[in-house]
Amino acid sequence: MAERDVVFMRRALALARRAEGRTSPNPMVGAVVVKDGRVVGEGFHERAGLPHAEVTALSEAGGEARGAEMYVTLEPCCHWGRTPPCTDAILKAGVRRVVVACRDPNPQVAGKGLSILAEAGVEVEVGVLSREARWLNRGFISRMERGRPWVVAKVAASLDGRIALPDGRSKWITGEASRREVHRLRAGSDVLVTGIGTVLADDPAFTVRVPVGEGRDPGVVVLDTRGRLPVGARVVREGTVVMVGPGVDEGWRGEMERRGVRVVEMGVRGERVDVEAVCAWLGQEGVNVVMVEAGAGVTGAFLEAGVVDELVVFVAPRVLGEGRGWVEGRVLEGLGEREWEVREVRGVGEDAVVRCVRRGWV
Amino acid sequence: MAERDVVFMRRALALARRAEGRTSPNPMVGAVVVKDGRVVGEGFHERAGLPHAEVTALSEAGGEARGAEMYVTLEPCCHWGRTPPCTDAILKAGVRRVVVACRDPNPQVAGKGLSILAEAGVEVEVGVLSREARWLNRGFISRMERGRPWVVAKVAASLDGRIALPDGRSKWITGEASRREVHRLRAGSDVLVTGIGTVLADDPAFTVRVPVGEGRDPGVVVLDTRGRLPVGARVVREGTVVMVGPGVDEGWRGEMERRGVRVVEMGVRGERVDVEAVCAWLGQEGVNVVMVEAGAGVTGAFLEAGVVDELVVFVAPRVLGEGRGWVEGRVLEGLGEREWEVREVRGVGEDAVVRCVRRGWV
Repeated sequence: MAERDVVFMRRALALARRAEGRTSPNPMVGAVVVKDGRVVGEGFHERAGLPHAEVTALSEAGGEARGAEMYVTLEPCCHWGRTPPCTDAILKAGVRRVVVACRDPNPQVAGKGLSILAEAGVEVEVGVLSREARWLNRGFISRMERGRPWVVAKVAASLDGRIALPDGRSKWITGEASRREVHRLRAGSDVLVTGIGTVLADDPAFTVRVPVGEGRDPGVVVLDTRGRLPVGARVVREGTVVMVGPGVDEGWRGEMERRGVRVVEMGVRGERVDVEAVCAWLGQEGVNVVMVEAGAGVTGAFLEAGVVDELVVFVAPRVLGEGRGWVEGRVLEGLGEREWEVREVRGVGEDAVVRCVRRGWV
Repeated sequence: MAERDVVFMRRALALARRAEGRTSPNPMVGAVVVKDGRVVGEGFHERAGLPHAEVTALSEAGGEARGAEMYVTLEPCCHWGRTPPCTDAILKAGVRRVVVACRDPNPQVAGKGLSILAEAGVEVEVGVLSREARWLNRGFISRMERGRPWVVAKVAASLDGRIALPDGRSKWITGEASRREVHRLRAGSDVLVTGIGTVLADDPAFTVRVPVGEGRDPGVVVLDTRGRLPVGARVVREGTVVMVGPGVDEGWRGEMERRGVRVVEMGVRGERVDVEAVCAWLGQEGVNVVMVEAGAGVTGAFLEAGVVDELVVFVAPRVLGEGRGWVEGRVLEGLGEREWEVREVRGVGEDAVVRCVRRGWV
């Protein structure tokens, strides 16, 4: 891998990342046009419906694109979606060489974009920083390859794994800096999933209150088997989804719908909405990244179903002792092979954070 | 603080640290003699009974010590202990200036060493890297100032704070690298404290099995209210101490003592040997640093008594769910002011480690 290819691809990845949490159902894509070793055009995909990264970068490059090289974080599309195929634009501009970080897992593209370019005489290279590119678009790739979003479970607990005192009090276990970081995680998620218990206990707004997240409030999904969500809850707003079991009160449903809340009936397992079905539904809705911010019951159900891909545990330097754990009363893992890999460990203000990724996929 | 003073003091601290876990009841001390900006003598205190750091450094410097500067991590002693006072040696060698990191909290010294030097016309400076020096000797200083050792509690748990499966199985929750690091922590401790439950369940040897710890096996103290320690347990060896409540079997006691085990009767709180009394006893015995490696009961008792100064939690990337927590069934902290400060967070092989220090003292 040539050093200069890595440098320009890194730039393209940085551009792509600018739209984190905003591009669903599309992936994040960044593109750089390079002429004689100099960047002459840059672009990234801002949100669905807006131009693709390649098109923006080419239009910035103008006539300079002829005979130039292009670095794209994902294989250029070759189909008509909401915008015309990027392969057409690349050929028309006369780009000489295209370097791609990873193939598009979308079955409508999946290597076809690259073949079209190669057959037209463009020099094509794939695999520069592919690991980084796949990680960046783990949500999109998960949806394409597994039919469900990438699921992050966020936990904020004491050193001994408690999320609440025995009397249920739980606010502010972790500190200011951790909470800011949770807001950044929210900004990078399409949807937050929570349980009715958390809503009834804390009435969270689940909005993004850090500058980076401006305009990026994720959607909210509340698992609420029996339809207990109060009309006055802060999450009751346009776009929120409530997943219910069968037989909820019709009057309640009407009240919700009048406020722009979608009420979706799901299968139920035990007392709880089937979380695998929830994931599949979210995949169909074009949701790439989901974050579960919930209590021990819902977090445990996602873990038990094996659909959590990333676990972000904020650890406050407290030892509560007696109290409620963040998963309770269910056997999850034995002491055999580890299911998780620690990706990141660091201090966050007064707390620590441990970020784990499930082994196997990615 | 002059930059060169910091450089030489850092060297003295590094020398002192070489004897970590070996100097009790004495502190770790390092000394550097500098002549015309060049190191002409170095020394550190290897163990009680051997020469003090200052004496070794001065003898290495020989005649060069006249008119030289000396950097010492702790105020030089001025009393006859097992060796003659260092202040005499310094004056005799003709050292011009003495820079000290921190005062000796030992009431037999406590500033007197410095006054003797200053009155004899030596230029004296105190406070260069004092924070680092106090941290290095937190064990010795704790014993001098509070009459008890510095107490480290070590925990190895899953992400959700579990140390055992519901059936009690607990071995190898954390990985190889964490276990090696535990051995290093042992090598830096004078004494390991454990409970009879841990001995009966795991029969640990509590030896140091990493190169750095060669010859540094700490003493072992077993809390065993009713005298249940089996004669064949691996910790039954010369130097081990068993803390019992009143009325243990005399035959058992005799068996223990024949094997070189000291049986010490302590006050009891509930079903458990009083851990505050244990700490006071260890302080009187000249123990500077203690590490508690025990189950939820003993670890919880030390935390509840407020005598844990440092908490080292190894976190394995596992989510056990149902299982035993590392402190159970006792209310320890509320959600007010944090009692702990995170000192260090990092990955250790496949695990993470969070190291906390209790606020207030140090």
